[in-house]
Amino acid sequence: MGRRIADVSAPARLAAAGEGLGQDELALAARNHGLPLEALRYDVTPPGLHYTLTHYDIPHVPDEAGWRLTVGGRVRHPLDLTLARLRTYPEVTTRVTLECAGNGRALLTPRPVSQPWLVEAVGTADWTGVPLRTLLREAGVESGAVDVVFTGADHGVERGVEQDYRRSLPLGVATGDDPEVLVAHTMNGAPLPPQHGSPLRLVVPGWYGMAQVKWLRDITVLDAPFTGFQQSVAYRLRQTPEETGEPVTLIAPRALLVPPGFPDFMSRTRVVAPGSVTLTGRAWSGRAPVTAVEVSTDDGRSWRPAALEPDHGHRWAWRRWSFVWPAVPGDHVLSARAHDASGNAQPTEQPWNRGGFANNLVQRVPVFCPDVV
Amino acid sequence: MGRRIADVSAPARLAAAGEGLGQDELALAARNHGLPLEALRYDVTPPGLHYTLTHYDIPHVPDEAGWRLTVGGRVRHPLDLTLARLRTYPEVTTRVTLECAGNGRALLTPRPVSQPWLVEAVGTADWTGVPLRTLLREAGVESGAVDVVFTGADHGVERGVEQDYRRSLPLGVATGDDPEVLVAHTMNGAPLPPQHGSPLRLVVPGWYGMAQVKWLRDITVLDAPFTGFQQSVAYRLRQTPEETGEPVTLIAPRALLVPPGFPDFMSRTRVVAPGSVTLTGRAWSGRAPVTAVEVSTDDGRSWRPAALEPDHGHRWAWRRWSFVWPAVPGDHVLSARAHDASGNAQPTEQPWNRGGFANNLVQRVPVFCPDVV
Repeated sequence: MGRRIADVSAPARLAAAGEGLGQDELALAARNHGLPLEALRYDVTPPGLHYTLTHYDIPHVPDEAGWRLTVGGRVRHPLDLTLARLRTYPEVTTRVTLECAGNGRALLTPRPVSQPWLVEAVGTADWTGVPLRTLLREAGVESGAVDVVFTGADHGVERGVEQDYRRSLPLGVATGDDPEVLVAHTMNGAPLPPQHGSPLRLVVPGWYGMAQVKWLRDITVLDAPFTGFQQSVAYRLRQTPEETGEPVTLIAPRALLVPPGFPDFMSRTRVVAPGSVTLTGRAWSGRAPVTAVEVSTDDGRSWRPAALEPDHGHRWAWRRWSFVWPAVPGDHVLSARAHDASGNAQPTEQPWNRGGFANNLVQRVPVFCPDVV
Repeated sequence: MGRRIADVSAPARLAAAGEGLGQDELALAARNHGLPLEALRYDVTPPGLHYTLTHYDIPHVPDEAGWRLTVGGRVRHPLDLTLARLRTYPEVTTRVTLECAGNGRALLTPRPVSQPWLVEAVGTADWTGVPLRTLLREAGVESGAVDVVFTGADHGVERGVEQDYRRSLPLGVATGDDPEVLVAHTMNGAPLPPQHGSPLRLVVPGWYGMAQVKWLRDITVLDAPFTGFQQSVAYRLRQTPEETGEPVTLIAPRALLVPPGFPDFMSRTRVVAPGSVTLTGRAWSGRAPVTAVEVSTDDGRSWRPAALEPDHGHRWAWRRWSFVWPAVPGDHVLSARAHDASGNAQPTEQPWNRGGFANNLVQRVPVFCPDVV
């Protein structure tokens, strides 16, 4: 027996106690990137600062005129659309905060070995495209349909399975209007950059990043639940490898601070002058609107309410918050904690699952406030 | 004695044998990012894919109309320029490949603990701006001047030293025309993105990234050598901490491959179908024009010449190369090796210095070629 393609993959594993990050985790961290946290100050994230996570390679699309989006499966009128044709449909622009399902993974104990995010895998953009429900209505979904599968052009191997990146949504979500799913061709008023799915991607407001299929080339309606790798093997909440697990879906609430003052290069510890410091940040939840943000300046021992700005009509985007902190000399740990209208709140004790998904433990920002600056 | 600002910094150190990456290194890797290597295919790197390295925070510039570039020190006519005024000077556009001085650091044994790059800290852009020599001529450099110091708006602490990011060039380089140093306001035809120095940065073709001062706000001519932290403490080639060391200056030659085939998600091992495979990549050197690229498909045991494209008039940008590889089933390690007109070539044995600078060891790309695909 020769070596097989599956043999290039190692099984999923947890890091041993005290095990530092390996070069496999570093290779992902060096390719992909998070939002530098000071960029939380922008309502809309400049594209090069928005987080990115590419499972395989960014596909090469030398000829956009040749790109096709096909819509098929359990439909009466299969579609085969050029980009030019797609742009003739009425378009919608929605401001959406996207977050990677694995955000927070590298802070977990034990640490699942995968893309090692701390807390920064987030970004907000204005996405413009055609509502998915418009395309599905035109294609005419047949009775008995249950799932809609989205296929990207990115191709690779993952835990022994060679695949195009492929995810599904339940039919009700795919055809719904709250949120309204988009087939997006435009990011912040410009064509999608390569790393954000050029020329087409799915945008599913409120859902974690794994649902936002990039380099979208096919939509297939199924009359049975989709059981592909990214749906049934990856992106499940499990405590043991044997469990079926619950699917990862909507973004759990999270608040992050713009780290105040200035940093040390290596430790990223912040130095803040004593006095009145206005802390600001963002909060979001895909599960329900954010209703409150609390701030702690004593490492979570006490919490006080922050001022939360209105959503300015952007239900699916993060909201700005602020809090005035009378900083006194010494060492402090700052945190913020989001609550949403469904009663979800960020935990102050670590939740854990084998994939390191949907982890929304409160952020800790160590700050040193000197006597004099 | 209270705790001081310097106490937020740890001393420079080397990782112990077998020590994995720490959360401090990860925090830098998650903020900053390299070029996903498949993006070597673009002549000009899209901005969000170009490597970035920010020592402290990306500065907040809410009011570009208020930005000033001052030129002072040993000059007869100090300048105080708005962006609008700067844009009235004749401008120059140069295509430049930039590379971080620390590229390759995380592959070193022992590993210097800092921003942990593998090989991907590179990118190429068309930079437009005002030649620095134009501004220095207008300011009138006085006799006795030796160094020109550039100050950015990014502020932080590094190994105990609170500082604005500040670097110098020898007067001859600053006023030279080969390379012609630019005060750049435009990247690929658009205003600089925040992470690339908005609204102004220095571009010094052929020099490593530490010279390319971002968020540039002051230029000061000195009549004595500049001895600031980033000149005299950081960015020196040293074998021991006690040495003065040699300064890091021009980019050493390097070639990289576009990894062929498709990857495994976690190991990044490539899977390539057997048959004739055209390998492509880029090669560059800041020391002299690239004259040759060799390719090895047997982990460096033998080397054969690649076809090197002309520079198309872009002396300071990477050049494309290609090589046809008859891939046969099995495991392979691919490498490329650049040579330049001054006789510099990439080493096949690891060079080492305490900062992990100017490391241009040949890249190794593990590839699995299955019997059937």
